[in-house]
Amino acid sequence: MAGSSVKAKGQPRAMTPVEEVDLSAVRYQSPQLHAPHITGFSLRLFVWLMESPLLGRLVTSLLKSQNNMTRMLQDTVIPERPMFIPEYPPQEPEQGVVLLEEDTDPVERVEKALQCLLPYDPSVHWMTEERPPFLYWKIRDFAHAYRSGITTPSVVAEHVIAGVEEWSNKEPPMPMLVYFNADDLRKQAEASTKRFQQGNPISILDGIFIAIKDDIDCFPYPSKGATTFFDKIRTVEKDAVCVARLRRCGVIFIGKANMHELGLGVTGNNPNYGTARNPHSVDRYTGGSSSGPAALVSSGLCSVAIGTDGGGSVRIPSSLCGIIGLKTTYGRTDMTGALCDCGTVEVASPLAASVEDAVLVYSAIAGSRPMDKLTLRPSPLCVPNLVSPDNNNILKSVKIGKYTEWFHDVSDREISNTCEKALDLLCSNFRCQIEEIILPELEEMRTAHVVSIGTESFCDLNPHYKAGKRTEFTLDTRTSLALFGSFTSTDYVASQRIRRRIMYYHNEAFKKVDVIATPTTGITAPKIPQSSLKLGESDYVVSACLMRFVIAGNLLGLPAITVPVGHDKQGLPIGLQLIGRPWGEASLLRVASAIEELCLENRKRPSAFYDIMKA
Amino acid sequence: MAGSSVKAKGQPRAMTPVEEVDLSAVRYQSPQLHAPHITGFSLRLFVWLMESPLLGRLVTSLLKSQNNMTRMLQDTVIPERPMFIPEYPPQEPEQGVVLLEEDTDPVERVEKALQCLLPYDPSVHWMTEERPPFLYWKIRDFAHAYRSGITTPSVVAEHVIAGVEEWSNKEPPMPMLVYFNADDLRKQAEASTKRFQQGNPISILDGIFIAIKDDIDCFPYPSKGATTFFDKIRTVEKDAVCVARLRRCGVIFIGKANMHELGLGVTGNNPNYGTARNPHSVDRYTGGSSSGPAALVSSGLCSVAIGTDGGGSVRIPSSLCGIIGLKTTYGRTDMTGALCDCGTVEVASPLAASVEDAVLVYSAIAGSRPMDKLTLRPSPLCVPNLVSPDNNNILKSVKIGKYTEWFHDVSDREISNTCEKALDLLCSNFRCQIEEIILPELEEMRTAHVVSIGTESFCDLNPHYKAGKRTEFTLDTRTSLALFGSFTSTDYVASQRIRRRIMYYHNEAFKKVDVIATPTTGITAPKIPQSSLKLGESDYVVSACLMRFVIAGNLLGLPAITVPVGHDKQGLPIGLQLIGRPWGEASLLRVASAIEELCLENRKRPSAFYDIMKA
Repeated sequence: MAGSSVKAKGQPRAMTPVEEVDLSAVRYQSPQLHAPHITGFSLRLFVWLMESPLLGRLVTSLLKSQNNMTRMLQDTVIPERPMFIPEYPPQEPEQGVVLLEEDTDPVERVEKALQCLLPYDPSVHWMTEERPPFLYWKIRDFAHAYRSGITTPSVVAEHVIAGVEEWSNKEPPMPMLVYFNADDLRKQAEASTKRFQQGNPISILDGIFIAIKDDIDCFPYPSKGATTFFDKIRTVEKDAVCVARLRRCGVIFIGKANMHELGLGVTGNNPNYGTARNPHSVDRYTGGSSSGPAALVSSGLCSVAIGTDGGGSVRIPSSLCGIIGLKTTYGRTDMTGALCDCGTVEVASPLAASVEDAVLVYSAIAGSRPMDKLTLRPSPLCVPNLVSPDNNNILKSVKIGKYTEWFHDVSDREISNTCEKALDLLCSNFRCQIEEIILPELEEMRTAHVVSIGTESFCDLNPHYKAGKRTEFTLDTRTSLALFGSFTSTDYVASQRIRRRIMYYHNEAFKKVDVIATPTTGITAPKIPQSSLKLGESDYVVSACLMRFVIAGNLLGLPAITVPVGHDKQGLPIGLQLIGRPWGEASLLRVASAIEELCLENRKRPSAFYDIMKA
Repeated sequence: MAGSSVKAKGQPRAMTPVEEVDLSAVRYQSPQLHAPHITGFSLRLFVWLMESPLLGRLVTSLLKSQNNMTRMLQDTVIPERPMFIPEYPPQEPEQGVVLLEEDTDPVERVEKALQCLLPYDPSVHWMTEERPPFLYWKIRDFAHAYRSGITTPSVVAEHVIAGVEEWSNKEPPMPMLVYFNADDLRKQAEASTKRFQQGNPISILDGIFIAIKDDIDCFPYPSKGATTFFDKIRTVEKDAVCVARLRRCGVIFIGKANMHELGLGVTGNNPNYGTARNPHSVDRYTGGSSSGPAALVSSGLCSVAIGTDGGGSVRIPSSLCGIIGLKTTYGRTDMTGALCDCGTVEVASPLAASVEDAVLVYSAIAGSRPMDKLTLRPSPLCVPNLVSPDNNNILKSVKIGKYTEWFHDVSDREISNTCEKALDLLCSNFRCQIEEIILPELEEMRTAHVVSIGTESFCDLNPHYKAGKRTEFTLDTRTSLALFGSFTSTDYVASQRIRRRIMYYHNEAFKKVDVIATPTTGITAPKIPQSSLKLGESDYVVSACLMRFVIAGNLLGLPAITVPVGHDKQGLPIGLQLIGRPWGEASLLRVASAIEELCLENRKRPSAFYDIMKA
């Protein structure tokens, strides 16, 4: 990367110390990824090759060297010290927020968050025959309907059950859930209905239907990560911490949502349970890895789903399916009870039909793991006070960072132009400003991320992989694991050195701006190749396009959110991503809420929509 | 290891979660290391084998599997999350200490530390012809001699210069320094002498002769880490932080001390500059990697030397050479300006002839790197107040932990018995207590350490190694680097998971005891094989014996100190190691000081002693 590395004669390539890098000399370079797209029998052959002891080593070496990984990680002197987890000094308090006090009962926190939402009268949807147009029922709509006796959780549960069955029997099938138990759902709904009948709902989330991604424990379901066998090596005895917090609030869990196997891919392709389909265009991918969660929310089967995001896995499918995807700061939510509870890049986070639903569920599930608090020093948990008279003034002072060349490096300018228009709307409505920023070493960032997440995933899987489970993974997972297994220990440490550099650049940017805006993905929902359904596919090039803008959220642990801002010519949703300061979820949600409001009329309901309230 | 791992049928080996390990079921197992001892032509052949692409992979695989590394790191489910750097929650303040306030001038800190030392009258050594017997001149002896006009730094400098020359011309030669500049030494001494003449010495350290290990920057010398070429890839433009702090106090630097090349070995063998010899027996190793520093202090050429300790490199040579070696808590001293400033196990620390000299120099060099303070939360910097009337009471309450089976796992019971006698002396004099403790998974600890230090060293060296410097390293270094290069990224992360387990066991032990005592090494100084002088040697078995007890200090970042407590039948020094709580240097120095005093008459001056005060 120009401006940040030098190579003296007879010496290895050396990066300039990060503080000395001249940003004005940095030139944006569009990533050039080299990897074959393979499906079917070729994929089987490729996996055999990758896994064979000698040839495999050759192939992975070739892949790593063609993609400059060897040069970046082994042939370059990186002067910075490794940063193994994304740690930040204590942050300044955000403006115009309400503190939630994370050690209190989630019910109290949700109640406080509810008071911060913009005024909204759900009764308008029920008062006349001619109801105002809307996209999705919100949590507040359900709450109103339950409290006013329009419907009950048990009635809605039957609609959910019917909906799931209808989708399952569709051609092509829409496998959004990998575990679903109608009896259990009825039992949960009955208990909730009873609470409403007795006039004692627990919280605004009581009777709200939420799906949980299959890599987060939701008792009594197993957690398989959408593999065929993970329940045999890991048993589930109780809810994950974030699920327990929701259950405490009266949430009804509709089952375990489909996903890209073990989260190791971003299309959502899954030969084990079938590939979830995009409700906006059923021959296209949802994106992943939280494919089921995004499809469920997008198609109207639930208001919110909980996913995990280690490399865009919440934001990418949210963007492709036209919904909100919030990725919280690393460590904001206790990951105990998630399959990946040991990594340095992944969080559990909500996908929601609206920003306000994300706010409510975020306020319920957040709260750091006690041991993380010592290391990560989270800023206090808070939500934006959207009803404060200051809200508009705060929005006015928001500075939005944009790295224009990167912003427009998308497959079709329509994507970035749509995002740009949303930003322009924001600026013209609130007079906030856009500032040009430069973020060097984006390729290094991606490399450091794949080595980090790959190593951390493989470290968990390796003992099982070697003990004979290798062949039970999908072929796509097997190519990934073969690649991850080729990373050396110095690749890992060098990646952590890069992490410190990239964090420095972002910290510098955040001295000028409050939020960094990008398109969420470099392409809209890609088509599902027919040939990929049975055996899967390996397509690093499409994956890289999907992941082009999401990595800072993971490698640096920064909070980020995707907001739907429009559709492309084919009617596929386009998402705008906002990346915030560490622990800055509240500011991010405030800006996202404003953009959501401004772009509401650009959004379209998906063709595959199921109205569970009125079924 | 019994009690801490289970293997269900058809499942990989899995470790019991660390909190559930039943310590009473743990059985000590003496380590069984498998590696050949090779020198000369065989070593050349072995290096060729290790470095060849295919065969090398086979050999390293074999080594790793024979030594259970593969089983521990790849075939075992480790439930704990990785702990990448040794972090501790804030510690309770130590008793009976004086705070040094690390942001103040080192001169002030040294002055405060001086007030904490036991009363001592250096004039007795000069009052009569019949001077009382003593081993080494202390810093306070020099200070007295300079202040009372008995001698001057310039006079002593001439003795040092003569001494260095005498040693260099000895047969066999005693290559203790790799850089020595008589003119520079004279200049420094002259400036110090002038300060005394003007009645303005800077501090108690003014005019004190100190050597710096060749992996710490001491301007204007290069830092080669005792390689032949490192000055070509890394230039020295100023003192390392710890050296600058000493220079500020008026210290005179006698040059760059010899070491095991790049610190990657613990014998001190160095074919580049010759192998430093043990002043107690010149046909034996000093131990390493701080071979030169230990030899210089042991032979009387300087009071203190600064070494680095990443795997016992200060403590091992100190123990083998009969002096004090303090290894401070990870992060206690700013490592800026040391070759290894990016690792997670290494510190810069003093080797000294007496505990009180270690206290004085420690108080000058300590002070965490600003960025480390956020992460590591060091307890305040302090030294034990040895003149406090409470001192004996505090010593009385000290609980010493001993893992008896481990303690006695030495090549000759004489070593552990001598250490035991020293502890008995302490207990009978101060009525403090010894408590039995159990430390499981010591083999796992060693494995995690070698992967951590190996990876972190190789990460720094790799770009140069690949750019053609490979053949410029010694053969011993090349075998190590070939091994380190074979570690996978999951080996590294699995090692960090083990780090968290081992830290848990030590934290549990420190709930019962204040200090853990072990012999410092499993053998006394080994003979230098004649065949190893020219090309070096690879002897992992001897290295493992030397390192048997030192690893917790590095992998867990704990402070530790070695105190000479006697000699074996061959007259070789035996060291007792005390391991302290994180940031507990002050307590450690207090106990060490008491043991030093009690064991003083067991110590012998080395046969190769040079009296620079009276030369």
